[in-house]
Amino acid sequence: MLLKLDEALRTPKSIQILEQVRSRIESGALRAGERLPSTRHLAEQLGLHRSTVATAYQELWAQGWIELSPGAHPRVRARIHPGKPLSKVAAKPSFDWGCVTSEPAAELLQVHRSLQGQGATEHVISFRRLEMDPRLLPTESFRNSLQRVMRLRGTQLLGYGDREGYGPLREYLARRMQRHGISAQPEEILITSGSQQALDLMFRMIAKPGRSVAVELPTYGYALQLLHLAGLKPMGIPMNSEGMDLDALEASMRKQRPALVYTMPNFQNPTGICTSPVHREQLLGLCERHGVPILEDGFEEEMKYFGKVVQPIKALDRTGLVAYAGTFSKVLFPGIRIGWVTAPRSCIERLAALRTFTDLCPAQPMQAALHEFCERGHYDLHLSRMHRVFRKRMQAAIRTLRQCVDPAWAQWQEPNGGFLIWMKLKASPKVQDWERHFATHGVEVTLGQAAFAAPANDVFIRICISLTDEEQIAEGLQRLGRALAAAHA
Amino acid sequence: MLLKLDEALRTPKSIQILEQVRSRIESGALRAGERLPSTRHLAEQLGLHRSTVATAYQELWAQGWIELSPGAHPRVRARIHPGKPLSKVAAKPSFDWGCVTSEPAAELLQVHRSLQGQGATEHVISFRRLEMDPRLLPTESFRNSLQRVMRLRGTQLLGYGDREGYGPLREYLARRMQRHGISAQPEEILITSGSQQALDLMFRMIAKPGRSVAVELPTYGYALQLLHLAGLKPMGIPMNSEGMDLDALEASMRKQRPALVYTMPNFQNPTGICTSPVHREQLLGLCERHGVPILEDGFEEEMKYFGKVVQPIKALDRTGLVAYAGTFSKVLFPGIRIGWVTAPRSCIERLAALRTFTDLCPAQPMQAALHEFCERGHYDLHLSRMHRVFRKRMQAAIRTLRQCVDPAWAQWQEPNGGFLIWMKLKASPKVQDWERHFATHGVEVTLGQAAFAAPANDVFIRICISLTDEEQIAEGLQRLGRALAAAHA
Repeated sequence: MLLKLDEALRTPKSIQILEQVRSRIESGALRAGERLPSTRHLAEQLGLHRSTVATAYQELWAQGWIELSPGAHPRVRARIHPGKPLSKVAAKPSFDWGCVTSEPAAELLQVHRSLQGQGATEHVISFRRLEMDPRLLPTESFRNSLQRVMRLRGTQLLGYGDREGYGPLREYLARRMQRHGISAQPEEILITSGSQQALDLMFRMIAKPGRSVAVELPTYGYALQLLHLAGLKPMGIPMNSEGMDLDALEASMRKQRPALVYTMPNFQNPTGICTSPVHREQLLGLCERHGVPILEDGFEEEMKYFGKVVQPIKALDRTGLVAYAGTFSKVLFPGIRIGWVTAPRSCIERLAALRTFTDLCPAQPMQAALHEFCERGHYDLHLSRMHRVFRKRMQAAIRTLRQCVDPAWAQWQEPNGGFLIWMKLKASPKVQDWERHFATHGVEVTLGQAAFAAPANDVFIRICISLTDEEQIAEGLQRLGRALAAAHA
Repeated sequence: MLLKLDEALRTPKSIQILEQVRSRIESGALRAGERLPSTRHLAEQLGLHRSTVATAYQELWAQGWIELSPGAHPRVRARIHPGKPLSKVAAKPSFDWGCVTSEPAAELLQVHRSLQGQGATEHVISFRRLEMDPRLLPTESFRNSLQRVMRLRGTQLLGYGDREGYGPLREYLARRMQRHGISAQPEEILITSGSQQALDLMFRMIAKPGRSVAVELPTYGYALQLLHLAGLKPMGIPMNSEGMDLDALEASMRKQRPALVYTMPNFQNPTGICTSPVHREQLLGLCERHGVPILEDGFEEEMKYFGKVVQPIKALDRTGLVAYAGTFSKVLFPGIRIGWVTAPRSCIERLAALRTFTDLCPAQPMQAALHEFCERGHYDLHLSRMHRVFRKRMQAAIRTLRQCVDPAWAQWQEPNGGFLIWMKLKASPKVQDWERHFATHGVEVTLGQAAFAAPANDVFIRICISLTDEEQIAEGLQRLGRALAAAHA
């Protein structure tokens, strides 16, 4: 097999290999069952590192083009439905789907498109995505748990299963909630497809024209989009250094009672702020007096690695006013899509009805594997490991920022856990487009705008350290410092 | 370990074992690491069949109470978070979540509750649930596929992944669609959480006050609930023996143009009717003339086992007016929650934007395992096996109905595939509550009411043979015949 790689092309070598092998299979030049050179052999022939060829082969395997078996030569796979090779030119259909799309859905499309553009660029250190570092994931233990549950009750797990979630997992979560001071029965837990679905179900449940939801200003951008989609109005309550400004909340509530308060008391996204026990008591008291329920988003509840743990608002809840949303996506595996809601049964039952009609139930094998994984103690082991790792990463970040960022250029608070640092930048006449400015200095952060319910006057950035190791953090934040220095030189 | 089972109790023996072992672990009478008797030993001691004990042990294992390993004695598991045993009495919270619930969500709750009541009763043969018989599922091949993909790229699969679905699976589906005459690119495919999510996304995309959606009368009950939730009005178009009455559709369209036509041309749920190629051409032509898009629900596309296969409407679509929803839940595994939409890119992109904000993305491991399973030919093998099995089951059903149901009591059409038989019953002064009447004769079917957008005058029943073998079908439909005979005696 003779491949020709083009040095001049920007396309990575592994992709060049992939495309050439693939087109030979499609054209019939390579036939089903035919042997491909070993990774070592092909790497030598092309003068590449073996891992480059291995990457290409793995992708070819994943796309169904070749067979890979440990110890055996790679072979061209017999395609079950070779069909015609898919034509590269999509037909141009004439019907305009835009004309049947509602306004909120059309706006989501615009936001979706703008997010799509944010691919990672080479040589740039990115602090954008809030996602656990894959290098830290306990894949092997999860794989074993999955294998075990599939062996013991595979057929049962491949059926529909409980609409409210896999029973044993709900029981585990009820017990786990006790550690956070929350007393919940398994029937007060609904398993969702990540906490994103929990937000969606809750907003749909209360959706009614004219209703509003009090949110922190800034808040999680996707929550604002979901409110908009549900036809709910965000009532933005400014954040101060303690959390949501409670006087402002009370004043807003007196003017118009919101249908719900949406809050993230721990490591708020994007500001990283944790509220105090007193703040939580006061927020709850305020909502009790006004009869407004709370959706508490505990997306990083268990990532407090500096100082004492503060109990969630739900733990203080005496009247069943609080629905608590949790997730395994931020510290564990996003790909299993598992989150949950803990709330009084009367709330869970309503959310469960909505979920039944919108996507029936969550996938059982993932839930059962997660339950097994947690019961065997792997989740706790992972958490304590993550605390060690991120304590160091966050310290590295804080150290570098103190060294490289002059307080005259930016204001920021030191977080006591989680992955986020929020910074208010001083405006600079030299910089119109901060995103581009940072990019030219080889660093990427998230601009704060999407997190505000209304246009913000100041420039904010969110630095997320979940995907970067200490070395990358130090280098990346030095670049950030240089970018700020250049802006204010 | 001394257990005492109570013969007089209605609680199954396996549950009695489970509860007694569990309460001993909770009370501390059985400690972590302690050995339990083998299934054989305990079965002998209690005078039960070994499988009864095995069932109890498996459930104890699933709930995390005991360890089971092949060849070793069962042992009490060391609980990671024993916590306090969860109190059985739920606290009575005072906040009323009903007061923040929207009307459509409150109505869904009522429907949800009424469906919850439909548990299977012992000694009754049930033709209710439309779900693949677990005895027929190729669990082992799927487990192997899952193990393989997790071994080869576990960490990658446990990350977020593509918002529109796992690339190789979308490519496979694009090729598979070709077999049905549909030309689609992978970017024209969106993986969804079952076809239920496809319906939900589509309805949300077009939702606007005052808009209506043309649906078959009767149709899939959950679709009606979803329309209601989205604030869309169903425009019911009567079915005749050929499918949706096209003259009635045209007349309705002239009066008010619907935003969408929702149709199931194959084995329509609940009537089981397949429309002809001519009917499909005409429906498409009508929609083209009026500029109304079509959502084609192909939930049982590949279960045509009598006669010639008819191409879906999407195969005839020249202008990109048709979105096609498919699913793996009905003939394969419902528990993996995988369906898809095939539509022009402009439609897919809009649906993808909605899905991104509502639940981000589907679980990757399930998608990758399904792709591997399909590429290895297991899906095709399974399908041809299902065709053989259900051809026989349906023949048994038709044979029994011909023998036992007098045409004066009920009218029905013989289906040419799928799992459903639809029957119009003659009213009987003796029977007010048909559900109870059938139950007293030891048989359960689905009453047709929920499938109608408006109250129906006639009594319809849906008989679903997906979960019953030939023997159960013969016995169950004989009971149905006796019940009808008694009603008209």
